[in-house]
Amino acid sequence: MTPATAETFDTALGSVASDVEAMLDRLLPRVEGPEAQLAEAVRYAALGGGKRFRPFLAVQSASLFGVAAEPALRVAAAAECVHIYSLVHDDLPCMDDDDLRHGAPSVHRKYDEATAILAGDALLTLAFEILADPETHERARVRIELVRRLAHASGAHGMVGGQIIDLTSEGRELDMGGITRLQQLKTGALISFSCEAGAILGRASPEALHALHAYAHDLGLAYQIADDILDAEGDAATMGKTTGKDAAAGKATFVSILGLDRARAQARMLADQAVQHLDLFDERADLLRQAARFVITRRK
Amino acid sequence: MTPATAETFDTALGSVASDVEAMLDRLLPRVEGPEAQLAEAVRYAALGGGKRFRPFLAVQSASLFGVAAEPALRVAAAAECVHIYSLVHDDLPCMDDDDLRHGAPSVHRKYDEATAILAGDALLTLAFEILADPETHERARVRIELVRRLAHASGAHGMVGGQIIDLTSEGRELDMGGITRLQQLKTGALISFSCEAGAILGRASPEALHALHAYAHDLGLAYQIADDILDAEGDAATMGKTTGKDAAAGKATFVSILGLDRARAQARMLADQAVQHLDLFDERADLLRQAARFVITRRK
Repeated sequence: MTPATAETFDTALGSVASDVEAMLDRLLPRVEGPEAQLAEAVRYAALGGGKRFRPFLAVQSASLFGVAAEPALRVAAAAECVHIYSLVHDDLPCMDDDDLRHGAPSVHRKYDEATAILAGDALLTLAFEILADPETHERARVRIELVRRLAHASGAHGMVGGQIIDLTSEGRELDMGGITRLQQLKTGALISFSCEAGAILGRASPEALHALHAYAHDLGLAYQIADDILDAEGDAATMGKTTGKDAAAGKATFVSILGLDRARAQARMLADQAVQHLDLFDERADLLRQAARFVITRRK
Repeated sequence: MTPATAETFDTALGSVASDVEAMLDRLLPRVEGPEAQLAEAVRYAALGGGKRFRPFLAVQSASLFGVAAEPALRVAAAAECVHIYSLVHDDLPCMDDDDLRHGAPSVHRKYDEATAILAGDALLTLAFEILADPETHERARVRIELVRRLAHASGAHGMVGGQIIDLTSEGRELDMGGITRLQQLKTGALISFSCEAGAILGRASPEALHALHAYAHDLGLAYQIADDILDAEGDAATMGKTTGKDAAAGKATFVSILGLDRARAQARMLADQAVQHLDLFDERADLLRQAARFVITRRK
């Protein structure tokens, strides 16, 4: 493994972020007339910042298999649309009730609740429209496999399932197994999709697909443990969102179950394990290796 | 045209309803454990009644091209999932604020708002998962075309776009062109998808697809005008939902613009026109012809 420096990682992450934002700008609705408010809210939600970590994973996994920039960025944009929709709905008063996202008013505070719900609905729908478009891949078989996997990762057996567990677990005791499953559904499934999508686009071998799945599994959990650590330690000014809410709501987190020290050790262990799953790839996987380091050292 | 009687039409509509409910029962999540509440809410929303008119259109259009029952019912179920999700989100307090649906508490009244939002999200996602499954059609090209059309009909340039116009038009003057466009997006696009889906499944000629598109366009408008007439005249006990709300909210409807008599004449004219678009089909299209009569004579 050629060690990529933290600097090259940050540059690569920023570069994918600006590429996927340009792609989103192309793909998001730009409507005049009476439905303009929807398009504005969708654009406000989608173009207001964020690490674009899922797009980064999709683009890097695609690069392992020589996938061209355009299809990789389209799939990256689709994954990001699903991520953003989930944030917009999660921020609603009846869910996490967050007024702040990326340091700015959340969509329902900037517009209103109805517009936020519809903007989320539009973003979820757009993700599938992007994947179904022939510009994403010339082969229908590849496009439909992406649709199938994204739908599974996002729905009742994936992200939405995780969200309902999260909402209904307040006040209930979740153990390590319970919270691991919650997070695998709520955030892990979409992270897995992002890592696997590049392999699907690149028509990779089952072994390569399996390796990326295993990488994503450990990376996703490490990411979430780090998130809980940041939430427990962090302040809103750095994070750009309200922090310490989980503890206030009496929700179990990896930190509340393991304590800070063991949570940090667990995140490191998972990050190391994630890197090991990439052993069959050459130095083209170095940025994915660096990503495992990034998730446990990031400050927001 | 062999005249199908009102009785045979009602029997056929009821038969498709029970077939698609059996299909939905098979396809909807059935989850034990901490996410059970989501599966319950999804099932409550989806299996609580309704005319199943979109499934009827999908099944009847598929029958024109000799499509087998299983794929036709899967596509019908996908269209119905999108329809139900839109009702669940529309009923929310920040949208139409309806406590009643099919004569029973709406999902957010039976559960809570967060569960209703997530149940809608899960149903929308499931629609695409159903279409992407190889059991829907052996050819990936057919499945991805269905995904592409359903996503377009449901998103910012279809149903969600219509919904935001509806929400932001309260108090604004919509003319006949404005309300026609609103309804084409909000309800017409999914009705068109339902009619066209059978042709896509059956790999029909462009002429047949075009005829069904034209039929669906006129049928959808006739349906909505009839809905406005029922809303203006109806009572909640017959309709199973709150009525007279559009007038109370100061929303323009076909009735408020045209008056009752001209609205009735317009619906009749559109229904006749819809039937004419079916001239290239033989007696297998008789139930679709009857459907045009049904939409303007139904009492709920």
